Amino acid sequence: MKARVFVTLKSGVLDPQGAAIGSALDGMGFDGVTGVRQGKVFEIEMADASRDEAAEQLDAMCKRLLANTVIEDYSVELD
Amino acid sequence: MKARVFVTLKSGVLDPQGAAIGSALDGMGFDGVTGVRQGKVFEIEMADASRDEAAEQLDAMCKRLLANTVIEDYSVELD
Repeated sequence: MKARVFVTLKSGVLDPQGAAIGSALDGMGFDGVTGVRQGKVFEIEMADASRDEAAEQLDAMCKRLLANTVIEDYSVELD
Repeated sequence: MKARVFVTLKSGVLDPQGAAIGSALDGMGFDGVTGVRQGKVFEIEMADASRDEAAEQLDAMCKRLLANTVIEDYSVELD
């Protein structure tokens, strides 16, 4: 089973990397861009798990390793 | 308009960061994990563009700044 986990900064948290990308895009002539936030995506391949088990395990992985829940949000997409 | 851009390493390209996360998860008891690849996600807010214009602009952004197309694939999701 394949899953995608998205980890992004919470909305109140400053994202200097995203801001730098936004201003770079602006400088390149992409005027329409009003905001950029950068996050991480993990593509995780799992063996032998039911959908529910996988979702539960992925949630635990996010809490324990993949995301810093103080400043980051995470979401999980199961294929 | 909101868009999400995913940038991931092409499948043949070594991903030591993903491998490190995979072995960390394994060490924490998540036995079912058979592979991890890490990528980047950009949440981009765009003003005043039609869907087609936005898609075109986002494609150009990926090619010129967001992705290194020699070693990375990208995909765009428009809300």
